[in-house]
Amino acid sequence: MGGESRFLPPTDFTMKELLIEEDSPGLTDVPGFRVSGVACDIRELGNDRLDLALVASTEPCAAAAVFTRNRVRAAPVDLSRELLGRGDAFFGIVANSGNANACTGGQGMTDAKTMGRLAEQGIGAPPGSVFVCSTGRIGRALPMDRVEAGIREAAGSLAATPEQGARAADAILTSDTCRKTVTVRFDYGGKTVTVAGMAKGAGMIEPNMATMLAFIGTDMAAPAPVLQEMLSAGVAESYNAITVDGDMSTNDTVILLANGKSGVALAEGEGELAGKFRQALRKVNDVLAEKIVSDGEKITKVVEVLVTGATGAADAEKVARTIGNSLLVKSSWYGEDPNWGRLASAAGASGAVFDPDRLDLYYNDVPVLAAGTPRRENEARWRDIVRAKRFTVRLDLNAGEGRFRLLATDLTEGYVAFNKTE
Amino acid sequence: MGGESRFLPPTDFTMKELLIEEDSPGLTDVPGFRVSGVACDIRELGNDRLDLALVASTEPCAAAAVFTRNRVRAAPVDLSRELLGRGDAFFGIVANSGNANACTGGQGMTDAKTMGRLAEQGIGAPPGSVFVCSTGRIGRALPMDRVEAGIREAAGSLAATPEQGARAADAILTSDTCRKTVTVRFDYGGKTVTVAGMAKGAGMIEPNMATMLAFIGTDMAAPAPVLQEMLSAGVAESYNAITVDGDMSTNDTVILLANGKSGVALAEGEGELAGKFRQALRKVNDVLAEKIVSDGEKITKVVEVLVTGATGAADAEKVARTIGNSLLVKSSWYGEDPNWGRLASAAGASGAVFDPDRLDLYYNDVPVLAAGTPRRENEARWRDIVRAKRFTVRLDLNAGEGRFRLLATDLTEGYVAFNKTE
Repeated sequence: MGGESRFLPPTDFTMKELLIEEDSPGLTDVPGFRVSGVACDIRELGNDRLDLALVASTEPCAAAAVFTRNRVRAAPVDLSRELLGRGDAFFGIVANSGNANACTGGQGMTDAKTMGRLAEQGIGAPPGSVFVCSTGRIGRALPMDRVEAGIREAAGSLAATPEQGARAADAILTSDTCRKTVTVRFDYGGKTVTVAGMAKGAGMIEPNMATMLAFIGTDMAAPAPVLQEMLSAGVAESYNAITVDGDMSTNDTVILLANGKSGVALAEGEGELAGKFRQALRKVNDVLAEKIVSDGEKITKVVEVLVTGATGAADAEKVARTIGNSLLVKSSWYGEDPNWGRLASAAGASGAVFDPDRLDLYYNDVPVLAAGTPRRENEARWRDIVRAKRFTVRLDLNAGEGRFRLLATDLTEGYVAFNKTE
Repeated sequence: MGGESRFLPPTDFTMKELLIEEDSPGLTDVPGFRVSGVACDIRELGNDRLDLALVASTEPCAAAAVFTRNRVRAAPVDLSRELLGRGDAFFGIVANSGNANACTGGQGMTDAKTMGRLAEQGIGAPPGSVFVCSTGRIGRALPMDRVEAGIREAAGSLAATPEQGARAADAILTSDTCRKTVTVRFDYGGKTVTVAGMAKGAGMIEPNMATMLAFIGTDMAAPAPVLQEMLSAGVAESYNAITVDGDMSTNDTVILLANGKSGVALAEGEGELAGKFRQALRKVNDVLAEKIVSDGEKITKVVEVLVTGATGAADAEKVARTIGNSLLVKSSWYGEDPNWGRLASAAGASGAVFDPDRLDLYYNDVPVLAAGTPRRENEARWRDIVRAKRFTVRLDLNAGEGRFRLLATDLTEGYVAFNKTE
């Protein structure tokens, strides 16, 4: 992380006022939220793996959400988008793992609606007030008898306990190796505001989100448009700035529910309270995104790719993504080989405008290329740096002010073996 | 290759009049060309691997060339581009493997010029008449003492024999596992015209060419602009329509030299003779591109990705490339898993405009999705198809007339292991 402190925008002062708890119980930390996780064998493997999660708020929530930009979208994504556009008071989320309910034709939408309706009945919420999410294998119809039994059981198990918080967070995982939760709190006017979330990641992690779900709850009250602006901005610099394999899924969804239970109400996106809430939400998204990339399928390293001096942010992003998704680069990271030639070549292939004779390249803060010329005297130091589980590759194109930061992973034989079949 | 005959433009009738010899001696089949391949230990490993090739024409040649669009270009690429723009009579090519002479600062251009000058002296050709190419590891200065000795030896070994043809073709290889040559002949007005080529490929095979070199010679006489138009068109549908790992190299170069020795002269790009020559050149490029992709690093399969019915050719290409470069798709090909969900998801992520509910998808000619709905009754047949070493994935977006054909490979654990270090 050598370059981060120097090259990222300075952290807002309010960050210091946040109480951050990683690996927390998650949504059950937020007053007014109850959750549950149950096993209903959606994978039809006869085991008792948790695979269905229910999130419920006692109070009506304002909501914001960001969905995959994949043109091939799962039925629950289409349904949840529609609900978001239509409704203004939401009571929860029902989500399953093990089956994406994508490429399932007309049956897929019927099943997604059934999931939502059963969840609403279980919670005692009005129609159209519960979001629906699915993740897992594409192209198979949901085993609806199991799903229906699972939702009924989940509704009966709802609780605000850490145990159910953990069960819900586990139920949405697929090839993840660990639970992903975080809770952030701050004080305002003598009251405490809580923002907490849970997520799943693993494969297909890339732009415009991945096979990833993130559910965030808060007891702040805020108008939906303010929540949406803050969530969208946060997604751009968290979930959309990580890559494992460059694949974008059919099901990616981030949902934010705000139930107002804290008694603290935000009216607009500016001001002290807005600043605090924005930072808290940002922290939740950053921590979850970091947990997702660090748990990428069969990875051994997380590499921060920091591009500065591009003619614009778009060019900086092109360079970062071309590097972070290059098979040759990722393979060399795995091999702990400081093959900076592949980095320079990927930058050149990205389409970004720059003069190779002005390119500066660093491993952490150690120069590799200075104005396009190798600094071979540093080679022993590069070799040390790339052996770490985490390091920074920094490119300064010296062509302008554009910058982009991407968290990427290496590529291992294990990834290929793991994804040969599903 | 199920779909090819039905979905590619019909082959021109002149194709039947071509005599095609794969794995030929290559350039020495073309009257007026002499070549040689020598070992000068450019890799500095103390072995006698062939690593320097020289191509020489007894007659001055008109030339055309296509170079990498990578912004980070090797010095010899910049030099050869400059020569092409300046000269009008060329006598040959000098090329080395084992060192790309890329990211080598000012020394790189000095060394590339030295290579060219020595080759010109060795051949007895005027200054600026010999192209220079390098391929191999990036970022290390060429061991010029070895290179210079090699060029002198190569000049002394020039011959029109099949043996030297093979040695030259071997000397440009890097991680290739086999020599890549082809010769095509046709008759015109009682005379025979020959077009022959040699190439190297292996890794970094993708758009805008790969770490690939292709040198093509012909005894046709033709104006340089006509040669250039024909070569550029041929590159688009051959070398630029294959992918192994999506990486574009710093050194890619295709050079065509026409020495006129056949006594057959082409004045313009239209007409019967132009049609025959265009087809012969196309065949040489197609065969070499096919050999390159089939010899991709540690691959086990070549998959033809055929996209039709896009709103335009650009959208068809986006879909084909997103599929052909998806790690999840490529891993599933390796695993012989008919995971069409990953194909549909990649298509949706490509940015191309289409309605998923109108998407038709096939393995060879067997329907997988019909108007977006799975045809599960065919599953046993899909499983058979994806076990083959070569098969076709066809997507009809049903949105327009745009089409694109890409030859892609699978991704194996072997690729990752092979590229961990260099």
